Amino acid sequence: MRSVTKQTITQAFLDYCADGTDPRLKFVLESLVGHLHDFARETELTHAEWRKGIELLTKAGEISTPERNEFILLSDVLGLSSLVDMVHSPDDATNSSVLGPFHILGAPDLPVGGDLKQDNDGPTVAVSGRVTDKAGQPIEGAVLEIWQTADNGLYSNQDASQPDYNLRCRMTVGADGRYAFTTVRPAPYTVPDDGPVGELLHATGRHPWRPSHLHFIVVAEGYRTLVTEVFPDDDPWLDQDAVFGVREDLVMHYREQSDPAAAPAGLEAANRLTNPYYTVDFDFVLAAET
Amino acid sequence: MRSVTKQTITQAFLDYCADGTDPRLKFVLESLVGHLHDFARETELTHAEWRKGIELLTKAGEISTPERNEFILLSDVLGLSSLVDMVHSPDDATNSSVLGPFHILGAPDLPVGGDLKQDNDGPTVAVSGRVTDKAGQPIEGAVLEIWQTADNGLYSNQDASQPDYNLRCRMTVGADGRYAFTTVRPAPYTVPDDGPVGELLHATGRHPWRPSHLHFIVVAEGYRTLVTEVFPDDDPWLDQDAVFGVREDLVMHYREQSDPAAAPAGLEAANRLTNPYYTVDFDFVLAAET
Repeated sequence: MRSVTKQTITQAFLDYCADGTDPRLKFVLESLVGHLHDFARETELTHAEWRKGIELLTKAGEISTPERNEFILLSDVLGLSSLVDMVHSPDDATNSSVLGPFHILGAPDLPVGGDLKQDNDGPTVAVSGRVTDKAGQPIEGAVLEIWQTADNGLYSNQDASQPDYNLRCRMTVGADGRYAFTTVRPAPYTVPDDGPVGELLHATGRHPWRPSHLHFIVVAEGYRTLVTEVFPDDDPWLDQDAVFGVREDLVMHYREQSDPAAAPAGLEAANRLTNPYYTVDFDFVLAAET
Repeated sequence: MRSVTKQTITQAFLDYCADGTDPRLKFVLESLVGHLHDFARETELTHAEWRKGIELLTKAGEISTPERNEFILLSDVLGLSSLVDMVHSPDDATNSSVLGPFHILGAPDLPVGGDLKQDNDGPTVAVSGRVTDKAGQPIEGAVLEIWQTADNGLYSNQDASQPDYNLRCRMTVGADGRYAFTTVRPAPYTVPDDGPVGELLHATGRHPWRPSHLHFIVVAEGYRTLVTEVFPDDDPWLDQDAVFGVREDLVMHYREQSDPAAAPAGLEAANRLTNPYYTVDFDFVLAAET
């Protein structure tokens, strides 16, 4: 287009897309490029600012490895990752939340009531609840994948001092839909802030903390897979999660207990519940597959 | 923010920015993140599409080197680079256009009238014109940096067979504001399409061609530096520049000549003007520094 101007360039971009372009791809690009152009026009983005942005992306490429993806972190701290979760969270079911970069495949099975804490230091928590459909009916055979940090705020794959698969398991629920396990209370931690995304956080006076959480993936035949996290209601970072992962329905109450009899029935570690310990109740509500 | 929703997340992001944040940075981020969130909501961006985008950026990081920046290329083919140019082009002065990745420092001086073509193959072009202010007054002492491709569509720093600084020079104009030189006609070429940006071009049925052009940077004290390119009006890719660099006022007419007397006066290579050769006239109008 010979006479491209700041008013016509968005249409020029669309005109470049060939007729055979996948309609969904074209729709996504139309929205993306339209917003990108509006952004540049609205801000009258300077060449120096444009270079800053290119530098941020270039540095993000340089610091990324198979274990650390700075582009995902950028998406996380800008709220994009969480927004994609929210856009696809079905109504009246448990909200999804960020998968995060620390999930690994192959965690061992743990029976309902099993002990995930083992030799880990830190406060003991008995976590239990049910997996149900929207009508409150238990979903037999639902499988939970569970993973979390140790007391030092590190996941097993970040910390050579932890055994492989420490604080990771798969649990299959029975006809009553109940899950239960004992574990250590997870700790808050920071997202990596030694790269270009950290620079952006620092420039805007933001901290890199995430509130402590337990990760869950809940899978059941005929239901939408739920990827989520649950947070304790007394975490100091609950209202300021660096990656916007907290939803009202994902906040649970850690109840301090002194009487072992207050624990859910059938815990493998029942006789090792130290005084005090905590109980936590949280139900997962799955939406039917559409 | 505990109750973050798809409606409140944009405000939550803004609330995270500390009071002391540089106001311009906050304004730019407010626009950027607002548009990014609108994009995700409008398209109901799926997790699979989000992953595609992360993959594109990750691959762009992997293929980038100090000599090849795939993020700049992405900005170019989405029209962002050209839009930043256009947003800052002053009215009534020559339009700016993309700098491109092939500019290098240290090109040798060539006097007005000098021969840049030397031993290069291809049609000879006599290029001339004036550097003026908006009132048409010559700007004495203005310096032009000029660079271009050889007849094979490659710049000297892309092609080991070309001498260093082949088809690159600096030229300082005198009191009349005139510049003139003989050179070879530059050739159209393709932007690199073997990376993730190429995949995007292919997926939308776009070609990677740029119309042939001469690059200029024009610098003069008291005036805004002009970074631009000029294009021949008969180039086959003129209306479909892959990076949206063409502006109406940057298109010039290559006049075929058979009579050496039709060349501008004072050319060093005047007696080597083969039949036919081309003349091209193009004036640069600079805006005063503000």
